[in-house]
Amino acid sequence: MQNIKKERMALEQNAPHTVGEQSIRLPVPIFLRNSASVVGTKEAQGPLGEMFDVKGGDDMFGAKTWEAAESAMQKKALQLAVKKAGLQMTDIRYVFAGDLLGQSIASSFGLEQFERPHFGLYGACSTSGLSLMLAAMVIGGGFADCAACVTSSHFASAEKEFRFPLAYGNQRPLSASWTVTGSAAFVLTGPGKIDVDGSEPCIHARAQITALTPGRIVDSGLKDSMNMGGCMAAAAADTIFHHLQDFDRKPQDYDRIITGDLGMVGRQALIDLLKQKGYDISQNHMDCGIEIFDGKTQDTHAGGSGCGCAAVVLSACILKQIEEKKWKRVLFVPTGALLSKTSFNEGQNVPGIAHGVVLEGVY
Amino acid sequence: MQNIKKERMALEQNAPHTVGEQSIRLPVPIFLRNSASVVGTKEAQGPLGEMFDVKGGDDMFGAKTWEAAESAMQKKALQLAVKKAGLQMTDIRYVFAGDLLGQSIASSFGLEQFERPHFGLYGACSTSGLSLMLAAMVIGGGFADCAACVTSSHFASAEKEFRFPLAYGNQRPLSASWTVTGSAAFVLTGPGKIDVDGSEPCIHARAQITALTPGRIVDSGLKDSMNMGGCMAAAAADTIFHHLQDFDRKPQDYDRIITGDLGMVGRQALIDLLKQKGYDISQNHMDCGIEIFDGKTQDTHAGGSGCGCAAVVLSACILKQIEEKKWKRVLFVPTGALLSKTSFNEGQNVPGIAHGVVLEGVY
Repeated sequence: MQNIKKERMALEQNAPHTVGEQSIRLPVPIFLRNSASVVGTKEAQGPLGEMFDVKGGDDMFGAKTWEAAESAMQKKALQLAVKKAGLQMTDIRYVFAGDLLGQSIASSFGLEQFERPHFGLYGACSTSGLSLMLAAMVIGGGFADCAACVTSSHFASAEKEFRFPLAYGNQRPLSASWTVTGSAAFVLTGPGKIDVDGSEPCIHARAQITALTPGRIVDSGLKDSMNMGGCMAAAAADTIFHHLQDFDRKPQDYDRIITGDLGMVGRQALIDLLKQKGYDISQNHMDCGIEIFDGKTQDTHAGGSGCGCAAVVLSACILKQIEEKKWKRVLFVPTGALLSKTSFNEGQNVPGIAHGVVLEGVY
Repeated sequence: MQNIKKERMALEQNAPHTVGEQSIRLPVPIFLRNSASVVGTKEAQGPLGEMFDVKGGDDMFGAKTWEAAESAMQKKALQLAVKKAGLQMTDIRYVFAGDLLGQSIASSFGLEQFERPHFGLYGACSTSGLSLMLAAMVIGGGFADCAACVTSSHFASAEKEFRFPLAYGNQRPLSASWTVTGSAAFVLTGPGKIDVDGSEPCIHARAQITALTPGRIVDSGLKDSMNMGGCMAAAAADTIFHHLQDFDRKPQDYDRIITGDLGMVGRQALIDLLKQKGYDISQNHMDCGIEIFDGKTQDTHAGGSGCGCAAVVLSACILKQIEEKKWKRVLFVPTGALLSKTSFNEGQNVPGIAHGVVLEGVY
């Protein structure tokens, strides 16, 4: 027993970048060098419409199926992000990608033509955070100079995958969210030639990733795929709580704590859950799902959702605020509901997961 | 343009562990400290039957659905691997897991009770390699002291997910493979207190991971979900080719080059494709799918397949050979076919992906 304890201590010395129970401080800043967002028609008409890079004339993006349309968005987003970063596709050493569809087909078929080594991920709507975390660690560990993260969702392919055929015209309860048709891609690099004395970085970047809190699967016992915000709130609370504990920070240390797609119902649950644990985030919480649509005029009920939701809002809106120095540090916490139509039909719960990524300005 | 070139060079200095076009040399040995395998009845009756840790009395593992049975196998495999490693579940800082089912529900529901931070992956049947690669980099980069990799597949849940209801009793062509009912878990740690002068490691480990070659998505234009070996062979050839090129090694530098589940059809295609590129692996190639069943008596046609196939053979057989010093160095290349029933029904191809992991003995 004594030996095992000693061994544990020896092992911990090999993990100098861990912080607290489940967090990570990156040894070098990981730059979000550039990014791109591609959205559908409804998103283009929403409050953030003007900020997205590409707005589809329809939601098919030249493809014949919804799934292929989602792939087309991913393709466009990655091409544009690489271009905006001033790089070539061959500069991207690894791609980290995933989506909501069974077997992540939007990513496989969207990205295969680029022939980049591919890390396939599944984190439901938290995939943007999952991909940024892994890419940041791979670059931070010295295993890649440059990587890309891509994710997407599509309203029509998601309804088909998870709920009812659109042609049924089924009614949606007020707790339901509207899956965002959108894709965003992010190009990440290491610090390059920045001088340690703090002189200007030679690399232009929109933001830097400085810390991570990978999330746990949290099952609140809810089963309602029409109230995913409620299902995910406990996971978001768990990740934010552990993040603040691990780094001994307060909510006020962040200009914004930004969840992915909790919507109106999930937001309130999150704020209540964290209040019970001693943290009041009501003043600086923001939810990408609430921001992307105008709930009053766009008939989107609780808000937007989907892998694409947090990703396109990060690219178009959050990074812009950081770039313009309006926000110095945000905690980005995309949230995922871990269900499939099979597990739902077999009466399983809908557990949630949320991953925390700290984004800061580059000064 | 000159500036971009300079910048690229600066960035490359931040990635000291990259090798060649797409490979990685780990800066410290990553120890496969221990592992466990859980299999169903048909696997237990196969040629490797005696080697697996847990053999189910039936294929339900106490659960009411095939999906829940798959989750139960993952749970059992991880518990046992952690126990065999002499650790507690709380010592596992991060879990890397995935499976074949839509939205990876076998992993979500199998592992949620352990409450470990979770990285969800999707690499089809290459997931064991995907998880080992990411865990190795996360530990190698100093972001975790200890991580676990878990994956699984189940014949009945996979047939339901990808092909026909079992009750149809449809006929299977000879090129079809038989999805392995099995799960394996691996516990990885960093080098701990090993002295640089080469004295005995204080940590017992079954093998060490020394290098990685993440694979690209390769689409050979095939569309036949009843010939997945054929669909994946080009991806395996691509990864093995680039691995050998990147490290300037020959096939003979490995005691075995081991693919995941190409089966009889895919194996021949792989050997032919690599011959065309100047490498003859016919003498030291092995395929987990061919080893796990007796094709003549078990009616499994081309061989075994599924995430669980490569994983349980790695745990039960490959690591044993390495541990017993019969093999000094192997290239483990699990292979995945990237399809869903949606993409298949929409007439899409079945692209493949294969990830290369170099395993060596611990001396």
